Amino acid sequence: MRAKPLVTLLTDFGARDPFAGIMKGVILGICPDASLVDLCHEVPAHDVLGASFLLQTAVGAFPAGTIHVAVVDPGVGGARRPILAEIDGQMFVAPDNGLLSHLFAFAGRRRVRHLVAREYWRHPVSTSFHGRDIFAPVAGHLAAGVEPARFGPEIADPACLEIPRPRVDAAGRIQGTVMWVDRFGNCITNIAHNEVKSLADAGGGSIQVYAGERRLGTLVGCFGEVPPGETGAILGSAGYVELFCNQGDLARRWSLAPGDRVLLETAEGR
Amino acid sequence: MRAKPLVTLLTDFGARDPFAGIMKGVILGICPDASLVDLCHEVPAHDVLGASFLLQTAVGAFPAGTIHVAVVDPGVGGARRPILAEIDGQMFVAPDNGLLSHLFAFAGRRRVRHLVAREYWRHPVSTSFHGRDIFAPVAGHLAAGVEPARFGPEIADPACLEIPRPRVDAAGRIQGTVMWVDRFGNCITNIAHNEVKSLADAGGGSIQVYAGERRLGTLVGCFGEVPPGETGAILGSAGYVELFCNQGDLARRWSLAPGDRVLLETAEGR
Amino acid sequence: MRAKPLVTLLTDFGARDPFAGIMKGVILGICPDASLVDLCHEVPAHDVLGASFLLQTAVGAFPAGTIHVAVVDPGVGGARRPILAEIDGQMFVAPDNGLLSHLFAFAGRRRVRHLVAREYWRHPVSTSFHGRDIFAPVAGHLAAGVEPARFGPEIADPACLEIPRPRVDAAGRIQGTVMWVDRFGNCITNIAHNEVKSLADAGGGSIQVYAGERRLGTLVGCFGEVPPGETGAILGSAGYVELFCNQGDLARRWSLAPGDRVLLETAEGR
Repeated sequence: MRAKPLVTLLTDFGARDPFAGIMKGVILGICPDASLVDLCHEVPAHDVLGASFLLQTAVGAFPAGTIHVAVVDPGVGGARRPILAEIDGQMFVAPDNGLLSHLFAFAGRRRVRHLVAREYWRHPVSTSFHGRDIFAPVAGHLAAGVEPARFGPEIADPACLEIPRPRVDAAGRIQGTVMWVDRFGNCITNIAHNEVKSLADAGGGSIQVYAGERRLGTLVGCFGEVPPGETGAILGSAGYVELFCNQGDLARRWSLAPGDRVLLETAEGR
Repeated sequence: MRAKPLVTLLTDFGARDPFAGIMKGVILGICPDASLVDLCHEVPAHDVLGASFLLQTAVGAFPAGTIHVAVVDPGVGGARRPILAEIDGQMFVAPDNGLLSHLFAFAGRRRVRHLVAREYWRHPVSTSFHGRDIFAPVAGHLAAGVEPARFGPEIADPACLEIPRPRVDAAGRIQGTVMWVDRFGNCITNIAHNEVKSLADAGGGSIQVYAGERRLGTLVGCFGEVPPGETGAILGSAGYVELFCNQGDLARRWSLAPGDRVLLETAEGR
Repeated sequence: MRAKPLVTLLTDFGARDPFAGIMKGVILGICPDASLVDLCHEVPAHDVLGASFLLQTAVGAFPAGTIHVAVVDPGVGGARRPILAEIDGQMFVAPDNGLLSHLFAFAGRRRVRHLVAREYWRHPVSTSFHGRDIFAPVAGHLAAGVEPARFGPEIADPACLEIPRPRVDAAGRIQGTVMWVDRFGNCITNIAHNEVKSLADAGGGSIQVYAGERRLGTLVGCFGEVPPGETGAILGSAGYVELFCNQGDLARRWSLAPGDRVLLETAEGR
């Protein structure tokens, strides 16, 4: 027996409109026994790169076969293609505008299809709400057991945004970037755990963290290792180095935002 | 076999309290296999007309038999009746304060009942949270298969608010109103697609759109037909003409809000 | 047959990140047929006492056997224990930091366990997101039918915060505190219905309500008993006296917040 289908939604639709609820109505109208999970609807409007990052931090918690519907779609109604991607055992229904960039960058196996089979869409198709008219019904039919190949042909050139990557400079320091600020004001960087490990192995001692030009503190094991109100960094739960202020809002206090520079060095590095 | 019951919730309860979650606990306590969908909980406090409009834009995406619980209820605890309405194959549980005005106005078939059968309520009934004590348990029992007639007698006079309707003026122009501003700052009007069609048929040329006294732009096919930052209008996904700024927030830039005047004319009209 | 398992989530995770959705992915990966309900994710960051109060106002609406996962966890990654509490027929998975204080204070029967059985956790366990790595998987296994005793040994000393309690002063007046401000600006106090009953029985007449030093109005039966814009108090739906402004936002108008003093007296009391 097929497991109970699980469908998630990630959008920039916010909460003041029934847009996400409408998509769920369409999905459940096609596949009444689907379990629906909201990943996030508060992606800043039109922030495709931010949504791509969030999606990558979330999918590891979901079981194989999960169907993720992601709709941050400033080009809705225009030429961009709707796609279905199978990536490492999970499925993604989204506009082909770079929303899956992080997933593609770190994927093992992937297969991407152009959604063209209009019999799986909702008609008439509007020009401004493909979440309701294309992405949700395709997710519903997928959840109901329709084979991916039925939705359209494979494509080899899905859109990919340039993802900011950290680099190791001549002095052996890691130079990275803030990618996301979470609700607590913690700043999630693009420096992955394994990259820090190389630095620690090389330098031996403790790791110093800078935000812009300012020294933030050291890399510690958990928030509570620095006193309340003090700052530091941890190997965060999303797989990346995360800057924080214990029980405070770092992003607000230090005016940090996505795109800001972050630097890691060993204590011996200076 | 009866399909898996689907229950939606639309309220002005916001997100900072567990009110919507509490209603879900009551529903699932009565009908554990119901699927629950949040339509929207961010209706401005006490905005019955706005909620009525939103509800109408959403129900078309839901399958026959869906049970919608709508609670925007400034008169809770007072004399207003709780009602159950069957409208075009879907069911609505709500206070009788005009919350179903748009649905009634455009309904084909409807049947409205006064909820009086207290054995389907939760006791003791509070005077300030009928969402939990009357509307949720009635929805739960409906979802569990109790016949509508069991909840109370039919009534012929449900409350209806006056819905702003567009009108065609002496010059053949359509004069309408902004009904709702969505999360992107798009302004949804009360001018339905078919009304525009009449105008286009009559005038022949392109359709010019004004917000208040200012010319906004032309009616186009999709957002992307105007450059980013430019304004225009489309036949929106909710069934109405929608004013927008491509990849910008029109309502903020132009200080538009529900109630503001909108005018459509053919290019030949002036 | 076991009823369909019901799992709720209450956190301070907000809506701008996929944290709550990630927890749901973990739960459904373990127990695909669980029903998930969001109680609230907008608890102010790190507000353990507020969350404890909210939880107590909500659980009465849920059926026996419900599993509540509550994560407001400023000490995540530190020494505080993860616990599982069985309280009056419902189950609570939470950090042992006082989050269950109100439930413990009013509980009939309770049994608390220290979560130590790491085979029910998600590995590797991060130091900053035990919601995903400990609390959600434990809830998932509970929902899937694992016996509570399997998760860890009983403990007798769960953390309890001091809960502000109302007191009756020498003049027979009840002195209480605002505990929570809801989305409408209503101020929920810590004065329970039965405490008011004693006052009413003693004094005979109407009950006068003061917020700080200012007279707010009288205790009435429902919001609509005072004109729109006027203030008063009711026996609120959460079990406590609630201060309100009919169709207005009392907390904003009177600048009230949790911790502010509230006084009740009979009209004869002065």
